[in-house]
Amino acid sequence: MLKSSKSRANKIGKAAGALVYVGERRIDKVRIAIIDYDKEGFFQELSNASIEDLARGKNDDTTTWINISGLHDTEFIAEIGRYFNLHPLLVEDILNTDQRPRLESYDDYIYCVLKMLKWQEENAAIEIEQVSILIGKTYVLSFEEGQDDIFNPLRQRLNNEQGRLRNCGSDYLAYAILDTIVDNYFLILEQLSEQLERLEDEVITSPAPNTLDTIQKLKREIIYIQKFVWPLREAIGRLSRGDISLFDQHTLIYVRDVYEHVIQIIDSVETFRGIISGLLEIYLSSVSNKMNEIMKVLTIIATIFIPITFLTSLYGMNLPNMPELNWPFAYPLLWILIFLISGVLLLYFKRRGWL
Amino acid sequence: MLKSSKSRANKIGKAAGALVYVGERRIDKVRIAIIDYDKEGFFQELSNASIEDLARGKNDDTTTWINISGLHDTEFIAEIGRYFNLHPLLVEDILNTDQRPRLESYDDYIYCVLKMLKWQEENAAIEIEQVSILIGKTYVLSFEEGQDDIFNPLRQRLNNEQGRLRNCGSDYLAYAILDTIVDNYFLILEQLSEQLERLEDEVITSPAPNTLDTIQKLKREIIYIQKFVWPLREAIGRLSRGDISLFDQHTLIYVRDVYEHVIQIIDSVETFRGIISGLLEIYLSSVSNKMNEIMKVLTIIATIFIPITFLTSLYGMNLPNMPELNWPFAYPLLWILIFLISGVLLLYFKRRGWL
Amino acid sequence: MLKSSKSRANKIGKAAGALVYVGERRIDKVRIAIIDYDKEGFFQELSNASIEDLARGKNDDTTTWINISGLHDTEFIAEIGRYFNLHPLLVEDILNTDQRPRLESYDDYIYCVLKMLKWQEENAAIEIEQVSILIGKTYVLSFEEGQDDIFNPLRQRLNNEQGRLRNCGSDYLAYAILDTIVDNYFLILEQLSEQLERLEDEVITSPAPNTLDTIQKLKREIIYIQKFVWPLREAIGRLSRGDISLFDQHTLIYVRDVYEHVIQIIDSVETFRGIISGLLEIYLSSVSNKMNEIMKVLTIIATIFIPITFLTSLYGMNLPNMPELNWPFAYPLLWILIFLISGVLLLYFKRRGWL
Amino acid sequence: MLKSSKSRANKIGKAAGALVYVGERRIDKVRIAIIDYDKEGFFQELSNASIEDLARGKNDDTTTWINISGLHDTEFIAEIGRYFNLHPLLVEDILNTDQRPRLESYDDYIYCVLKMLKWQEENAAIEIEQVSILIGKTYVLSFEEGQDDIFNPLRQRLNNEQGRLRNCGSDYLAYAILDTIVDNYFLILEQLSEQLERLEDEVITSPAPNTLDTIQKLKREIIYIQKFVWPLREAIGRLSRGDISLFDQHTLIYVRDVYEHVIQIIDSVETFRGIISGLLEIYLSSVSNKMNEIMKVLTIIATIFIPITFLTSLYGMNLPNMPELNWPFAYPLLWILIFLISGVLLLYFKRRGWL
Amino acid sequence: MLKSSKSRANKIGKAAGALVYVGERRIDKVRIAIIDYDKEGFFQELSNASIEDLARGKNDDTTTWINISGLHDTEFIAEIGRYFNLHPLLVEDILNTDQRPRLESYDDYIYCVLKMLKWQEENAAIEIEQVSILIGKTYVLSFEEGQDDIFNPLRQRLNNEQGRLRNCGSDYLAYAILDTIVDNYFLILEQLSEQLERLEDEVITSPAPNTLDTIQKLKREIIYIQKFVWPLREAIGRLSRGDISLFDQHTLIYVRDVYEHVIQIIDSVETFRGIISGLLEIYLSSVSNKMNEIMKVLTIIATIFIPITFLTSLYGMNLPNMPELNWPFAYPLLWILIFLISGVLLLYFKRRGWL
Repeated sequence: MLKSSKSRANKIGKAAGALVYVGERRIDKVRIAIIDYDKEGFFQELSNASIEDLARGKNDDTTTWINISGLHDTEFIAEIGRYFNLHPLLVEDILNTDQRPRLESYDDYIYCVLKMLKWQEENAAIEIEQVSILIGKTYVLSFEEGQDDIFNPLRQRLNNEQGRLRNCGSDYLAYAILDTIVDNYFLILEQLSEQLERLEDEVITSPAPNTLDTIQKLKREIIYIQKFVWPLREAIGRLSRGDISLFDQHTLIYVRDVYEHVIQIIDSVETFRGIISGLLEIYLSSVSNKMNEIMKVLTIIATIFIPITFLTSLYGMNLPNMPELNWPFAYPLLWILIFLISGVLLLYFKRRGWL
Repeated sequence: MLKSSKSRANKIGKAAGALVYVGERRIDKVRIAIIDYDKEGFFQELSNASIEDLARGKNDDTTTWINISGLHDTEFIAEIGRYFNLHPLLVEDILNTDQRPRLESYDDYIYCVLKMLKWQEENAAIEIEQVSILIGKTYVLSFEEGQDDIFNPLRQRLNNEQGRLRNCGSDYLAYAILDTIVDNYFLILEQLSEQLERLEDEVITSPAPNTLDTIQKLKREIIYIQKFVWPLREAIGRLSRGDISLFDQHTLIYVRDVYEHVIQIIDSVETFRGIISGLLEIYLSSVSNKMNEIMKVLTIIATIFIPITFLTSLYGMNLPNMPELNWPFAYPLLWILIFLISGVLLLYFKRRGWL
Repeated sequence: MLKSSKSRANKIGKAAGALVYVGERRIDKVRIAIIDYDKEGFFQELSNASIEDLARGKNDDTTTWINISGLHDTEFIAEIGRYFNLHPLLVEDILNTDQRPRLESYDDYIYCVLKMLKWQEENAAIEIEQVSILIGKTYVLSFEEGQDDIFNPLRQRLNNEQGRLRNCGSDYLAYAILDTIVDNYFLILEQLSEQLERLEDEVITSPAPNTLDTIQKLKREIIYIQKFVWPLREAIGRLSRGDISLFDQHTLIYVRDVYEHVIQIIDSVETFRGIISGLLEIYLSSVSNKMNEIMKVLTIIATIFIPITFLTSLYGMNLPNMPELNWPFAYPLLWILIFLISGVLLLYFKRRGWL
Repeated sequence: MLKSSKSRANKIGKAAGALVYVGERRIDKVRIAIIDYDKEGFFQELSNASIEDLARGKNDDTTTWINISGLHDTEFIAEIGRYFNLHPLLVEDILNTDQRPRLESYDDYIYCVLKMLKWQEENAAIEIEQVSILIGKTYVLSFEEGQDDIFNPLRQRLNNEQGRLRNCGSDYLAYAILDTIVDNYFLILEQLSEQLERLEDEVITSPAPNTLDTIQKLKREIIYIQKFVWPLREAIGRLSRGDISLFDQHTLIYVRDVYEHVIQIIDSVETFRGIISGLLEIYLSSVSNKMNEIMKVLTIIATIFIPITFLTSLYGMNLPNMPELNWPFAYPLLWILIFLISGVLLLYFKRRGWL
Repeated sequence: MLKSSKSRANKIGKAAGALVYVGERRIDKVRIAIIDYDKEGFFQELSNASIEDLARGKNDDTTTWINISGLHDTEFIAEIGRYFNLHPLLVEDILNTDQRPRLESYDDYIYCVLKMLKWQEENAAIEIEQVSILIGKTYVLSFEEGQDDIFNPLRQRLNNEQGRLRNCGSDYLAYAILDTIVDNYFLILEQLSEQLERLEDEVITSPAPNTLDTIQKLKREIIYIQKFVWPLREAIGRLSRGDISLFDQHTLIYVRDVYEHVIQIIDSVETFRGIISGLLEIYLSSVSNKMNEIMKVLTIIATIFIPITFLTSLYGMNLPNMPELNWPFAYPLLWILIFLISGVLLLYFKRRGWL
């Protein structure tokens, strides 16, 4: 994840507005999906539209959602930009997938960029994808890097003629897209929360050297999510405050709901960070405890055997006139002495609380 | 407690306003308790009311407190919502028990959500329950997840005809409910304070490996309480500033008192956090100290016996022409040497402050 | 000190305004001391007044200072409250000794609550007492929990007819009381500063296990003082900004002086906290250093004797055909070998910087 | 890098406006490069201009970029200052290369100072150079300490008649210079990010004593970059907010883009700092882990051999009447005992999880 | 340095305005130096003036700088106060050398108090001295605790008739004094920076127990300087914002320059603090590393000799029927075994990376 600044460096010295896609190619072909509908019940879905179909977006009577998957074909995106009359810097921003989440208000449309987080089950990692949303009076353009399924429930709800979605304009559609993306964050938080719980158990009960690696990895993930949700707060906050005329008063109530969710996500991420920040210290303490246990065993065994080995070594000497060598019960007496010394030492350790 | 984000994830893709209760079912049946009263002395209590009894809440002459315990019957809550003409998102919020404490002002009512903390004696844990309060001109609706006794003293005070409660409107009733919940936090703080004191003693005098677990658990509880009281400050603060017309000037003085208590709770929680944040380091130091003690004993015993064991081993050799083997007083001389070496070493350790 | 939240919990469920003294009884009998004076030279002191003498406080011509020591007689305090027409919540606040320092402005008077810190020489601890001050147009009421001597110099200055105190009104008297309490904080800081200096020396030169206890205790004391002086800043700050009409322009210059002192106290406490926060780490380092020393001695002694003991053990064997056993100078040669090995090892340790 | 305050000290006591260059001389001769152009296609480049050529800068019809490399010739810079009528303090600031990045708005021009960071491949260090930019109505003066190539792509773009650069005024030229410098920061971030990744791996897999040095060095570099980019945010932010009339509305969109980049750089640097702050603790943990491993081996070997060596020493004694000395199978029995003891101990260690 | 709060405590209970000098007497006799000048070339210097000479300060035509060295003669300072009509609290503040740096604006003059830091070469410590500056329309009064040379360059510049100083009023003189004091801070930063660099090297390459002491001492010094420069920012900031009419518009540009320097000092101090805060951890790591090295040597030597000493002890036994005792090549075989065991162990340690 640290690589984002790397790809960026390729652009140095180029003129502003030069179009370069800095992400990695995720799908083969750019795909356009268009959904066109109005309150009167008109509904049309083109899941694999051509560039000519974009004309519907400019139709003032219906609400059109144009979803573009795949950003590697810069010329294609540029054409869409020209078609919708977008500022060159904005097209550049859509292609630059290292953007901070933010909201920009233009004369005819709102530009909103945010990160979509997806949980990759196979390698237990978080996949980050940038989504750019352009909200016009009668259309919503959404650009995603790959082909995702997270908008499918939304498409199904649009199919339902009675749904609120069909009866509202592009602002409510934009809200629904934002809501879907933000709600998806909860899935990620759930995964992180589970990992954190497992990690806490592991750290306290069985700290292994590779636990260290897991802690640092999780901490870094949390730092990154924090980096993505903090600016989101500001962006959605601006929307929810109603500064932007495109959004209807009734939709604002829903946007405020999304804002509430973003705050809640920030809260959870902060809580996670608070918890993980102590884990390393606990790990250190756990390791110290384990070492302590080992030390104690060494001390006890060594401290008991060192004095009695001295005794046996003493009577292995060849010095003359050692009176003990003539005592007939010297050997059993020695064993008594050995057990006495061991007993006294064990008692001492017991009293010190080392056993 | 980390599981809150989990249940939330089930809602992804659903339309806003879809009613799902995300908490766990705590009681068998939803119970409605209605208390209806006015200044003239009218007083009626229905501890197990039916949905038809709600009509009293709309009666403009009396103040009505409707307390709903249990939120698992979403259809039932939806009916109440329709009855009192609540916004669909608000009904959804009442059912969603992962809300951050906050206050929302609508045209006809105020919506306030906060957490009720209860101390569970049996497993020494804090139970968290969400309470939603709707304050209208002539009624107060309170929604709690389970059936609790903490409102009983309040009910008794309402029984008392002379009490201030009976002579004021719904705003003072709302204040009394908030005050009861906030005052309950002090009980939790008391428990935490006791635990913290016990933990501090334990860490310094007898740090055990499981102390680590207790520290982390307590720290997490404090992080969670912090998460619940910080937004409460803002919510009660907005009430106390008098922006909301529903609240009478005389009641505001009391609300400011609750606000003062919330600040005091935040202060205490911060203090607790300040104290616990150092405990882990102290634990580490304590464990180091203990290890040090063990090391010292090992050093002293080993260091005294290693040289004298060398001596005895020396005179166990079978080398020819060892002059000492022919000295008649070699054995007593050796003992003198042994005591001399031990004495010098003990003195050295004493001087270094290791004994 | 952690017990403050405990006593508080007893009030849960009681109506607001119910009078309960949450502190501990410090003196036998509530004592009232009244000082009555004006610019014209009138001066009267009643060191043990009865409740009837309070009437002077309402006298518009003279300035009256009524100091009440002891708060356990709630009925008595309630009577004073009725006499001076105080809000029930305010009387409750006077009795509740867990208040945060703050300032409240009412129509006819200002209510100011703050903590008086006193150094208890006998057990080297800080005693905390709450002082409530009510400042009216012609009177100042001060409530303290016990009987203290810290106001004595103030009484003596009042005795002096020429003093500024006698020539100003109740606002300057209130300033003088605040100034006396705040100045007393410097005594506490002095004690803490001395303790901190002693602790720093101890930690670096001779860290003992109980040093840990002292660090934690001092840290907690500093956290508590911080908790008391931070809100004081706000309270005195509000006074000094001149928002409150009761205070004369000339007195404000003096109040700003007190404010300056409070800032200075906060500065010092922050500095203390900055210093103590590093002490635990230094303690850990000191203990590590000491352990290191012990380890070194063990290593050196053990490492020297282990090889030479091997040698002596070697020649204690009873194996046949050991050529050394037939060498006539084997014994002196062995000693040479022993000294050689020891010398080489000592040189090696010297070179590694371990000696 | 810590030396910046040193050179500064030489100025103490000197009058304000006394010209001293506090940096180190980086190139032999001060070089002036002038590029003069207008929208009509006029373009002239003087890569090694004399001071007389400066006159073009005052020409109102064309936009002139005067780039001065090398600041050691204070008299020369003073002459430029006099020529463009700059305040003496400003000329002093241009020469003082210890400035914080900032923006100052004067009547006729804007003064902007910032740091240029360059990656030195040979010694893997960051080179810091101060750049001062003076933006007038028809000219841009840029002062750099050495001769750099980073403006070369900019010069090439100016050569292109169709480019936006040629068709805009001095404000867009200033933007392009700022953009070039800020974009260069991404290169540095890329290097730091790579170093950080390598360091993280090293710390966890193979912590060596010199890793410590690398961590501290990297941390210091990040602290310094933070010190340079934080004030940059404010400076560019002021520009982008449009307070300064010199900048055209169309150029502001581009300046806001630079501002966005600065924010992104700050974000990355903060992230880096968050990650590195935990590395030292991880290093400590890694070292502890390694020590633990060593301790375990010692314990196991020592604990197995100490008891059996006691046995062999026992039967080396010369005491009379030792019954074992007469058992014919004593020796094989002893070996059985030795293997038994070792086996039991190994099993015990296995069960404790130490193997 | 921690003693500042101590001397302060002596004032408790005294009336405001009671004059006590809380610092230590630094010079024998209070000295007054007066410099009187105007734009027309008039210049007079009295390096040892009497109190009667103060009259010049009230002369409206010339600018007079009165510098008082030594504050122990409180009566003398009081007389100056009466002469210039200063508020009693202000005179008290001049004598109280525990003030926080701040700026106070009165009707006729500005009072500014700040700390002068001086490097004491002999004991490598920072000497702190309080300087109070009173800026009137035609005079500047400066009070310093001792006799310093740091104003000498300023006096020389005043001697120069052409200098800007001589041609401006008291505001520019005040600026010059402030600038001299603030510039002196850079000298201190230079010393601290050098100490910090030396300390960093020491910590990583050769951590000694007394390094700990140096770290804590340096950290405390940085905390103190931080305490002095933070409020200075506010004080100079207020001056530079031009709220104070005494300062001419042209002088303000210079004051803003001083402000810029103060910000730069704060930046450097923060950077120093960031660097030193990690040093203790690095010290701990360094010490751990060293201990690790020692442990390794012990492990290797002990682990090699323990098994082979067991072997020699084995063949020292007197048990019957030991077959090895009859092998003619038992002894050389034993040596082969000894080298084999040692070799295998050394190889094992090598493979584990312990050698």
